[in-house]
Parts: sequence; structure tokens; C-alpha cells
Amino acid sequence: MAVNQSTRIERLKLIQKASFIDAFLFTSSSTITCLSGHFFNFEIGPNPFQLIPAALLMAQGHPSSLVLADNEAYEPCGIGAGISIKKYASYQYKNPLDYTAKFVLKLQEALKELDLSQARIGIEQDSLPYVASQAILAVYPNVVFVDVSEEVVCLKAVKDADEIDQIRKATVLCDIGQAAVLKHAKVGMTELELFSLIRTEMEATVGTRVPIMLDLVSGARTEEGGGVPSNNIIKEGDLVLSDLTPCLNGYWGDTCNTIIVGKPSAEQSKHFQLIESALQAAIDFIKPGVKANEVDQLLRKMLSSVGEYGHHSGHGVGTKNHEEPRIVPYNEMVIKENMVIALEPAIYSNGYGIRLEHLILVTQTGCETISKFKHCFEQKS
Amino acid sequence: MAVNQSTRIERLKLIQKASFIDAFLFTSSSTITCLSGHFFNFEIGPNPFQLIPAALLMAQGHPSSLVLADNEAYEPCGIGAGISIKKYASYQYKNPLDYTAKFVLKLQEALKELDLSQARIGIEQDSLPYVASQAILAVYPNVVFVDVSEEVVCLKAVKDADEIDQIRKATVLCDIGQAAVLKHAKVGMTELELFSLIRTEMEATVGTRVPIMLDLVSGARTEEGGGVPSNNIIKEGDLVLSDLTPCLNGYWGDTCNTIIVGKPSAEQSKHFQLIESALQAAIDFIKPGVKANEVDQLLRKMLSSVGEYGHHSGHGVGTKNHEEPRIVPYNEMVIKENMVIALEPAIYSNGYGIRLEHLILVTQTGCETISKFKHCFEQKS
Repeated sequence: MAVNQSTRIERLKLIQKASFIDAFLFTSSSTITCLSGHFFNFEIGPNPFQLIPAALLMAQGHPSSLVLADNEAYEPCGIGAGISIKKYASYQYKNPLDYTAKFVLKLQEALKELDLSQARIGIEQDSLPYVASQAILAVYPNVVFVDVSEEVVCLKAVKDADEIDQIRKATVLCDIGQAAVLKHAKVGMTELELFSLIRTEMEATVGTRVPIMLDLVSGARTEEGGGVPSNNIIKEGDLVLSDLTPCLNGYWGDTCNTIIVGKPSAEQSKHFQLIESALQAAIDFIKPGVKANEVDQLLRKMLSSVGEYGHHSGHGVGTKNHEEPRIVPYNEMVIKENMVIALEPAIYSNGYGIRLEHLILVTQTGCETISKFKHCFEQKS
Repeated sequence: MAVNQSTRIERLKLIQKASFIDAFLFTSSSTITCLSGHFFNFEIGPNPFQLIPAALLMAQGHPSSLVLADNEAYEPCGIGAGISIKKYASYQYKNPLDYTAKFVLKLQEALKELDLSQARIGIEQDSLPYVASQAILAVYPNVVFVDVSEEVVCLKAVKDADEIDQIRKATVLCDIGQAAVLKHAKVGMTELELFSLIRTEMEATVGTRVPIMLDLVSGARTEEGGGVPSNNIIKEGDLVLSDLTPCLNGYWGDTCNTIIVGKPSAEQSKHFQLIESALQAAIDFIKPGVKANEVDQLLRKMLSSVGEYGHHSGHGVGTKNHEEPRIVPYNEMVIKENMVIALEPAIYSNGYGIRLEHLILVTQTGCETISKFKHCFEQKS
């Protein structure tokens, strides 16, 4: 592969030139993970001692600065080379709390290392905190803020080799989770009990807690397409839909399988096979140059005889679990090499739902399926 | 109790008067939960289809508006009476994504229902997104933003009856979790396996996933005071420190126990009893009028013969798991009725650590211990 870690930095330079940007200040957690490697585990909620996940200041020809709360700068924080970490004291029990002022000081310290007096600063307007915008204006009253959110979304849609590696690792957890569903699901168990067994196997693999977004529903709940696991008890003949989306070091995996606890009806087996064929057809179809909505159209067309599914056919996966390219009817985005896409056709009808999902990597000539588990409807008896 | 749901709204009016505020725009998730009841479960990460958890616009004499992504407005969202929800379409797979523009339109719609042309708007500067500040200025170019973060922190430190009820419910989960530690911890089990059993019991109680922040460490790791559960295997004679902090509907519980898997040494038993006595002394001491640092001093003094613990002695608990009143050496904040405080004295020495924590509610004349489990060092054999 021709890709290496630095291509996203090279691609950032193209945005810089096209929009006449002098410096960037990134504040969304997904962009910060993508461009610096820093990841804050959100599973336990917003850190009570920080403003924002971090702020990343980047200007060509200068080292980048990552302004970070000291209690976020844990190891391994995976910060990329060439990035200087500017830690501020966010909480010290012996001293009064003034993390906002300390954040502002560190940000201004980083700003003053550059000359931005008449600069155009590329920002993410949704996540830039007001206090940070004022901190910049206090140092450089004449800067112009330019929202580059959309450009950055496109940048993040194409992955570098190190990112693909991270996504592969997260997807191994999906494979382990899907195997666990097949192994453990049984009559009389609650959805939450099943989830606990799945999560335990996934977490044991990496030896730490792993944030997991998931749909895990059984029986009639599968017709709704998803939901949080509950005390709903799995009954004989129930379908179990498991859409597992773990986040490992800031990068997500995403796969879905649907199994039956018992024996399927002829219609259920037919639906499962239809979806499997549609998914395979989409995988065979995808290559650089095709458009996102062409993939969407292909999937919907192949399942149109049994009804519509009221959601996207897929989406990009990276430092967000749902990003470009979105595989939806309107999206004319052209698929490119090194995009990572989750494809998830489904049928919801007659009181049950089946959805099958694989995660694929677009290659030079087609695509590779990153998720290695095989969709399997029936458990081994 | 003289408290009812509306006292925090009454207290907000005092801030409004004291700071000459015409309207508030709240954007931090903890304040939004406190003042509107809306809670977004952060456990699965930032919603990829929204800007911010929500924005809450409040002005005296007008109904409040909660600007909310439609996919956040799930039931039960527990929104308080008198709050009008302004939903914006955050993601519809059939239409192009432009949630920022839609958020801005809804926010401006809410703003235009008020006359804020020369207004002073109370904001939380750390969490107000730049795009929201610009949306306000586009409608009312002459508004003045006044940061009221500190005032709101003080407001949130005193709880209303409905909030105390929510914290009690979250604390029931702590009690269940601590009982599960005593029941399940055994030699040969990993910390993660133990966590899985604890979490399963806590989640089964409420029938859904529950975000849980916790320290769960065993053996030598207890001397560090905490950490994420790992594949570390519990050995005979190991201590297990479990600091369980679940979040139920936006309100947190918090308790800590330390047990021994096996038989304690004389020193370990002595340390456990010393900490238990110190905790009880602090509980006996707390009442309205004492200062936070007096509580801190009492706890540290009682344990000074066996060394210092390098963290706070406690903290407030509510829509944040760590808030005012912080029980720390410098804090002269006066303890008031209806504050909820976690107290957590500890001893870390000789290769192990013991920390015991209860959650208390300050009453008119003293305090009530909200957490009902009894600290217990040894398992039943």
C-alpha cells in the first residue's frame, strides 16, 4: 500500500491552501483522535475537571500543540510524533479549581509561539468552546475564524495505514462478540445477561474496559431494528439481533448478525439468505469510483421484493462510529481507496427483523472485508 | 422537608437579579439535566448526529425552550413541566445532513420569542459552542455574554427533593454493587470478571444499561488508590477496592468499600477500623454551617498517624460525579442543608490501600447516610 501515517497531514495542507488557512484549532474529539492520536475514554462521562477533550493547534512549519488537561494525559495516550503536549493543571486537591483560566493560559501560550496577528484560523464551529474563541481574540483581535468542519469530515473519510490497523483491532473485538452471541444465546436468558457474557469476552481480549455501542434485542424487538439490551427474556424461536460497535483507542468497529434461538421458518431462512446475497453483491460492487448512492440503490433494489428498511444502507467508520461516506439515497460522494465502510442491509417484517453487517476496506480495485466472522443464522446444537 | 422541585428555579432567579441577567442559555450537560431533566446517555459516546447535548434557553416570565436533536428526544426523556422542546432534525437518511444549520434555526426561533436586543445573556463559557454564540449575535448583535458558570455550580450544590430522590435511586445501585463484590470476589478471578458480575447485577435491577465509573483493583494495585479493572488475577490474601459510581437518569451515586479475599493481618484490620471510625466521625460532625475544609481537616487528622492520602476527602454528587462542595484543604464553602456529599477517607501504605466511602445528605440538624450498605472487610465463608 502506498499509504502511510502522514497522508492525512498532507491532505490537511490541501485544505490549508484551498481555504487560505494560516492555522487550525481543532476541538472535536474525533478530529483530535484522528490528527493527534489522543483519545479520551468517554464511557465514564465527561471528565469533571476539564473543559473539552482537548484543543489541537496546527500550523504549517511549526510543531503542533495539544492543549490537554493533566488528568487526561494518561499513558498510553498515543500522541503522534511532532506534537508538543501543553498540559494544564485541571484538578489538584490542594489548590482551588480554576481549570478554565489554566486552559486559557496554555492555549494562549501555544498561540503566541506562532504569529497569527492577521490570521485566518480554521475551526470546527460546533465544538469550539466560546471561552476558547475569546482566548484567541484576546491575543489576536484581528483573526478571522473559518469553519472547516466539512472539509475535515471529508479528510477523515479516507484512512491512513495506521488508522486501518486500529480499525482492524477494534473489528477483532466485533468478531469475538459475534462468536459469543452464537455460543451463549439461549432460551430463558435475558438480553442483558447475554450482553454481559459478550462484553466480558470482548473486554478480556484487551484486558480493560471497552466502550461498546450496541443494539442487542430479541423476539418482537428485532422488528424495530435495535435497542438497548433489557430484561426481556429470550424465548424458543426468538431471533436475536446483535449490532456490536466497540471503540478501541478511539477507533470503532461495527458489525451486525442476527441469529435464531431454535429453528427458523422457511420465510426467515429465505430472508436471511436474501440479505446475505445483497450484502455480498454490494461487497462485489464496491470499488474506487462508484458513488455512495449507487451502493445504497443496489442494496435496496435487491431487497425491494420483501419491503423497505427505514435506515441507511451503511456508513463510514473511523474515529466516529457513523461518518462519511454515508450509504444513503442522496449521497453522490465518490468512494475512494482506503475508505472504511459498514454495510448493513436488513428486512423488518412479520414481527421480526434481520440485519447483517460487515465492515469493509476499499482497496485499489475493489474491497476487502475487515470483519472476519461469517454471518450465521443457526446455533450449533 | 420544605424543599420542592421549584427551589432551584427560584435560586436561579437570584442569580438573574444579582448579575442583571435577562436570559440564560445553558449548554453543559450537567446543568441541562439539573434544570430541565433531559439526560443523554454518554456511555456510547457523543451522538454523531448532534452538536451538543442540548441548549436550554431560560428567561423569567417566559416558558423555557430546550433545543434538542430529534434523536435525543427519546422517551422517557423526563423533561420538566413548563419547558417547550424545540426539536431539530439531526439525521434523516433520506435527506442530506445539515444539523448545524437546523440547530441554529431552532435556537434562533427560540431566541426570537423573547426580546433580547440589548440583553445580558448568562452563559456557560466552557460549553457554549462558538456556532451558538454566533447564532445569537446574528439575531441580537448587541447582546452581552456574561459567564455564570460559578454561580450555577453553587446552585447545583444544593439539591431539591426530586434530585435527592434520583440520587437515592442511583445509590441503591451502589448498595447492590457492593453486596455483589462481597458475594462474588474470589481467588483466581480477574478484576474484569468480577466487574462483569457486579455490573450484571446492577443493570438487571433497572433493566437497562447503566453508565458506571469505577475503580476496581486488587492486590498491589489497591495501594495506587484505584484504576480500571484489568485481567489482573485476584490472589489469596488480596485486597479488592471497589469504588462504584453509577449514573442513573443523569444523577450519580458514589460509594467505596475495600474487602480482603482471605484473612487480614492485624495491621490491615486496624487500618480498616481506623478509616471506619474516621468516616463515622465526619458523618457525626457534618451539619449545616460547618465548612468543607473543617470536614477535610477532621478526616486527615484522624488518620495522620498512619500517613496521608493524596486526594480529596470527598466531594459533592449530583448531575456530576464530582462537584461542589469539594471536601479539600482550601475550601471554605459552608455546608448547607440538602447538599449531597461523598466522603472517602483512605490509607495507602505497606503495599495495599483501603478506602471507605459513604454518600450523605445534609439535613437541617446533621446528615443522613444515603448509602445503606455496611462497610465490610471480610467475606462470609
